Amino acid sequence: MGDHLPGTKASLKPFFEPKTVAVIGASRETRKPGHVILRNFLERGFAGKVYPVNPKTEEIAGLKCYSSVKDVPDEIDLAVVATPAKAVTQVIQECADKKVKAAVIISSGFGETGPEGKKREDEIREIAAKAGTRLVGPNCIGIFDAYSSVDTLFLPRYRLARPTKGSISFISQSGAFGVAMLDWAASLGVGISKFVSYGNMIDVNEIDLLEYLKDDPTTRMVIMYLEQTADGRKLMDIARQITLKKPVVAIKAGRTAEGAKAAASHTGALAGSDAVYWGAFKQTGIVRAFDPEELMDFAVALNSQPPASSSRIAIVTNGGGFGVMATDEIVRRKLSLSELSGTTKRYLREKLPPYVSVENPVDLMGDTDAQRYLIALDLVLKDPNVDGAVVIVLFQTPMLESGVVDTIAEMAMKYHKPITVCATGGDYVEIHRKMLERSYVPCYQTPERAARAMWALMFYGDYLKRATEEEKTA
Amino acid sequence: MGDHLPGTKASLKPFFEPKTVAVIGASRETRKPGHVILRNFLERGFAGKVYPVNPKTEEIAGLKCYSSVKDVPDEIDLAVVATPAKAVTQVIQECADKKVKAAVIISSGFGETGPEGKKREDEIREIAAKAGTRLVGPNCIGIFDAYSSVDTLFLPRYRLARPTKGSISFISQSGAFGVAMLDWAASLGVGISKFVSYGNMIDVNEIDLLEYLKDDPTTRMVIMYLEQTADGRKLMDIARQITLKKPVVAIKAGRTAEGAKAAASHTGALAGSDAVYWGAFKQTGIVRAFDPEELMDFAVALNSQPPASSSRIAIVTNGGGFGVMATDEIVRRKLSLSELSGTTKRYLREKLPPYVSVENPVDLMGDTDAQRYLIALDLVLKDPNVDGAVVIVLFQTPMLESGVVDTIAEMAMKYHKPITVCATGGDYVEIHRKMLERSYVPCYQTPERAARAMWALMFYGDYLKRATEEEKTA
Repeated sequence: MGDHLPGTKASLKPFFEPKTVAVIGASRETRKPGHVILRNFLERGFAGKVYPVNPKTEEIAGLKCYSSVKDVPDEIDLAVVATPAKAVTQVIQECADKKVKAAVIISSGFGETGPEGKKREDEIREIAAKAGTRLVGPNCIGIFDAYSSVDTLFLPRYRLARPTKGSISFISQSGAFGVAMLDWAASLGVGISKFVSYGNMIDVNEIDLLEYLKDDPTTRMVIMYLEQTADGRKLMDIARQITLKKPVVAIKAGRTAEGAKAAASHTGALAGSDAVYWGAFKQTGIVRAFDPEELMDFAVALNSQPPASSSRIAIVTNGGGFGVMATDEIVRRKLSLSELSGTTKRYLREKLPPYVSVENPVDLMGDTDAQRYLIALDLVLKDPNVDGAVVIVLFQTPMLESGVVDTIAEMAMKYHKPITVCATGGDYVEIHRKMLERSYVPCYQTPERAARAMWALMFYGDYLKRATEEEKTA
Repeated sequence: MGDHLPGTKASLKPFFEPKTVAVIGASRETRKPGHVILRNFLERGFAGKVYPVNPKTEEIAGLKCYSSVKDVPDEIDLAVVATPAKAVTQVIQECADKKVKAAVIISSGFGETGPEGKKREDEIREIAAKAGTRLVGPNCIGIFDAYSSVDTLFLPRYRLARPTKGSISFISQSGAFGVAMLDWAASLGVGISKFVSYGNMIDVNEIDLLEYLKDDPTTRMVIMYLEQTADGRKLMDIARQITLKKPVVAIKAGRTAEGAKAAASHTGALAGSDAVYWGAFKQTGIVRAFDPEELMDFAVALNSQPPASSSRIAIVTNGGGFGVMATDEIVRRKLSLSELSGTTKRYLREKLPPYVSVENPVDLMGDTDAQRYLIALDLVLKDPNVDGAVVIVLFQTPMLESGVVDTIAEMAMKYHKPITVCATGGDYVEIHRKMLERSYVPCYQTPERAARAMWALMFYGDYLKRATEEEKTA
């Protein structure tokens, strides 16, 4: 397991900002991981030096190929290992001899296959530890850093799009889950800072990574996929530290007994009681997502909106039925509908047409324009009884200008209260969803998703408030 | 309220298959409903005759405009009324005098605004009833029929895409909800037969519409949005009849006390106890969706897959973590994981690589090709312990050919057991999702959604089995 001395940060840096990289098991066959990874480094803006290593080849992609990492006439910060499992022990021995700082072991065929693979893991761990070489993996997809262009994802770009630079970092025990989410993020236009699939975590685990990301300047928040933790106590310690600085959203698979059993056969890991994890998350301010859609939705919300200072939510809509559905979900999630102040209602009544409903949910009706949204949001968000707003916008209605996007973004900036938007529909709506998200306002396909994202903002806000009070008392 | 004598079917037919249409309140202003609706009929393949009516204009869009529907030198099957509310009573009187068979009243400003509007509704209802003119609305979006091209949706096509012809019919008390879902369906490529937004339902209500759709040859299934019913007892009667012939999925808003209150202020309707509705749905085989995403997901599943004969589900995946999440949701939804037979497991072991997991979930691993899916699905679906399969396909993995789409579609055909697919990701996945859905296999973004769609197939299958047994006993 990783050691958590002050050196963690320095020792993990070569994974994300190496100046020199050796791709061990580099291949000329275009579909092999050792080929795709080499090309990722050569073609996608990585600024450092790249050395292919493969005893069977003299040259790959125009570069001289070395028989062993030991032959490379340069110091190596990061080795990416994509050889067959049997060769990995020797490869890591050579990395250790060469004093390689960090190695990502992509290869599978280790602890996940049984006791023999587990034994090989122990050997490798020991060799690397002695030399001070940090290890990610084995049995993983490795690392993607949108800033440095480190990219060990061995899936072709036409199948797996890479997200743009952003401020969300993502750590995942499951490689498949990780890349599927990255691909989804790319298509949504959600930017990523660092992605790490850490696989069997024989050295670097989720605790090390959270410690690193806590102080990482391009990481504004962290999302994670967990099946089990390397060390529950340490996870809680680091979680308490990081959540005071940035939001963390986690999805924990294996909720049911049957799911936990499936997880055990998948990674050989004991998933642990779901209730214990949920309790630990609540105590340390980790926002829990119950499925991948919530993970994505909560990430987008927490990355762009301030946390809610309390749970009283206003709904502003141009479709009555949607207001009803948002209300249902808000109540089910233990948020509450704001009781709008008399002043707010009086002004709403004065400034809006008489057939508009000025109770919460405020229904601006199907003939609304952007101006009504401006009036309503300006009054509602000013109201001290309102901690956040779920705004429903049916862009299809004929009088509603696209400029309502600016209106909503402006109001979010003006009042520093969280806003989540629901806009249900097809292509025309999708254009506006992207406009909203580029204006840092999260927008969802259903009222329930917008309401649940508000729950996440409330959960985190509530935790921060309690944690800060505890600090004062202590 | 609608009368349910044998005449219902004949009296509703003019709404969907009129030979002559009068657009009353037709307008020259391009953004007005009376203009958009006229253009819909003129430009989108409607085969009948169209007559604009507006006393203030002599000609619209090249057509002679009539002062009153009574002046039109033709019988009128369907009148679409888009005048101000105040004018509607007289307009309907003229329709009655003219013996117009059916009228859709788009105009709002009736029962939803208070007692005075309610009074106008009573007048209109009485006038129409005497003349035998059936009414849809007021305060609605009206009707869209993808086959006949009746289209009273007054939202411009660039904002609201119209779905292609299909076999799902959709009735909605909320107009805004209805059009947002239609737009979404269009972007997903989900085809629609008939759509009716019935608004304040002063005559035609959800019960009449279900009765009509029960025997409609282009309707293979029905989805509906309800806030309250016109008559609970009659709804249950007709639901019992229709669900024996075709699936019905319903979303009922106003689940919580607060949501019910919001619904009351929206339509003036009492939403009624949520538990009563849920009980009625269970008794009559209506599949309940709890949010718009489930409504869409269940519709797609029930429209293309056979119902499950029982609840024992197999999972086939190429990503372990996804198998865990699908397992969790299957168990939470009271489905169960199939216990694969010894024979199945023996053959799986024989025919698949040794590192593949042949327990349920069957994990084909990240290096799978389409052939492994063929072997696994062929064996698993043949197994008498398996009632349906949730198939997880990460299309991003390098060795997996697009042909796996054909494999899955072929296996669904061969075994007549339901299949739902999960494929998480971005653009490359979206291409394959569409390929699958065009092969009549539903495909979802998350394992939870695929598992929940399987629940819907199980719920309906279970109901059908019980209802058929009861019929035999009776």
